[in-house]
Amino acid sequence: MDAFVWPVRVYYEDTDAGGLVYHANYLKFMERARTEWLRSLGFEQNALIRELAVMFAVRAMQIDFLKPAHFDDALEIVTRVDACRGASLLFAQSVVRSGREPELLCRAQVKVACLDARTLRPRPIPDKIKLEISDVG
Amino acid sequence: MDAFVWPVRVYYEDTDAGGLVYHANYLKFMERARTEWLRSLGFEQNALIRELAVMFAVRAMQIDFLKPAHFDDALEIVTRVDACRGASLLFAQSVVRSGREPELLCRAQVKVACLDARTLRPRPIPDKIKLEISDVG
Amino acid sequence: MDAFVWPVRVYYEDTDAGGLVYHANYLKFMERARTEWLRSLGFEQNALIRELAVMFAVRAMQIDFLKPAHFDDALEIVTRVDACRGASLLFAQSVVRSGREPELLCRAQVKVACLDARTLRPRPIPDKIKLEISDVG
Amino acid sequence: MDAFVWPVRVYYEDTDAGGLVYHANYLKFMERARTEWLRSLGFEQNALIRELAVMFAVRAMQIDFLKPAHFDDALEIVTRVDACRGASLLFAQSVVRSGREPELLCRAQVKVACLDARTLRPRPIPDKIKLEISDVG
Repeated sequence: MDAFVWPVRVYYEDTDAGGLVYHANYLKFMERARTEWLRSLGFEQNALIRELAVMFAVRAMQIDFLKPAHFDDALEIVTRVDACRGASLLFAQSVVRSGREPELLCRAQVKVACLDARTLRPRPIPDKIKLEISDVG
Repeated sequence: MDAFVWPVRVYYEDTDAGGLVYHANYLKFMERARTEWLRSLGFEQNALIRELAVMFAVRAMQIDFLKPAHFDDALEIVTRVDACRGASLLFAQSVVRSGREPELLCRAQVKVACLDARTLRPRPIPDKIKLEISDVG
Repeated sequence: MDAFVWPVRVYYEDTDAGGLVYHANYLKFMERARTEWLRSLGFEQNALIRELAVMFAVRAMQIDFLKPAHFDDALEIVTRVDACRGASLLFAQSVVRSGREPELLCRAQVKVACLDARTLRPRPIPDKIKLEISDVG
Repeated sequence: MDAFVWPVRVYYEDTDAGGLVYHANYLKFMERARTEWLRSLGFEQNALIRELAVMFAVRAMQIDFLKPAHFDDALEIVTRVDACRGASLLFAQSVVRSGREPELLCRAQVKVACLDARTLRPRPIPDKIKLEISDVG
């Protein structure tokens, strides 16, 4: 699958007293990108909960913080689906500083589980979503 | 009423690249203090929602940022109920840097509305809560 | 001056267990909009600190939370300069839910002070910036 | 080494519209705990920067989100140093819901690098700190 690229601008709210982006905030950037990737396939999470009682939750993450991002940086979050299993998705995501020579700042593997929105227990990813993912895969 | 004092420590997550506490985060500190004030009166918000279908929401705020707080500062959030009306509470809150000579950093008036947790519409504050507030008042 | 309009999408990170946008996060949205407004006039805050030793800080805020925003809402932050004084700017900002019938969710007056980035003391707004503001005013 | 245990209360600011703690916020809880662990050994990070030009930054993290925490939960962050190398520390941290039968909610391995605060390049952990760590180890 082609990577899905989502731009993120660094604001004051994202930084800490070290002058750099606070490490936990890269996880927020990555979730924004996964949300927008899903939207680009035609799925609004609100509608998924309402119509299919389906929601997604992060189960595990392996993340390397390679170089820091600064206030005002223009970043790109690059998202790829590495695997689409029965009840979970495996993403490879990275945070890149845009520019003539893009720099890799952060790299992660993210396991996202598909849950029944009422019971919060794992459930199979709806076929409707699986189809869209493999279509672009 | 005597003031309710709640301690807050400043962590990296609270600061921004200016080296100081990010302004919106004082609002978080104040809400922690209101939550703990309510708990000190014997009310857990979870139980209020479950048993009385009551929740509280900030309706308006007037806030002055006088001096900055820094990473690692030990703060105190001072909370007073200024008025307890039918369906809302008016708080006076301040953020003070602890120490031999405490410094006033931030001062706010906060209007909190009592809502029906199902409809999110204003409703009278339950007598049970009003009684506790006037008891300490 | 014409209003400056900046779009903001609501992500999970912005909401709380009440299902709505957490009140302090509207302040983040408003700051993003002020940052982008300044950028639209040609000023990057990084460069202002580096070249003019000038930074801006919120001094006071009056804010009304009228209606809640939800997860996935598309919002617009509407920003107007109400007054440009010697060492401070007064903004009128509002948060509007986009759509066929836009809804006003939040309304604020924000006083921002111009500071010397080394001493953190108030200083006059540089003429260069004042000129740009009055040009669009 | 004995584990260092730091209590964290879940407030509205920590939750999201799913009704649970937003995943990135567990990273904040873990950093609060590492900060307090360092303080318990006698080191304030402000002083470390000022006196030794030393700061710490998260380099990598492996994290499993096992069960969700809810609004108002009383949590304990359990922190152990797994390894103290030349220029980095390896922590094992977990988030546990307090109570008669404590529940493991989240488990992480965190690699923290020691940096020169001026250059942001890796540098050896000061002996003074190493000694304190091995003393408790």
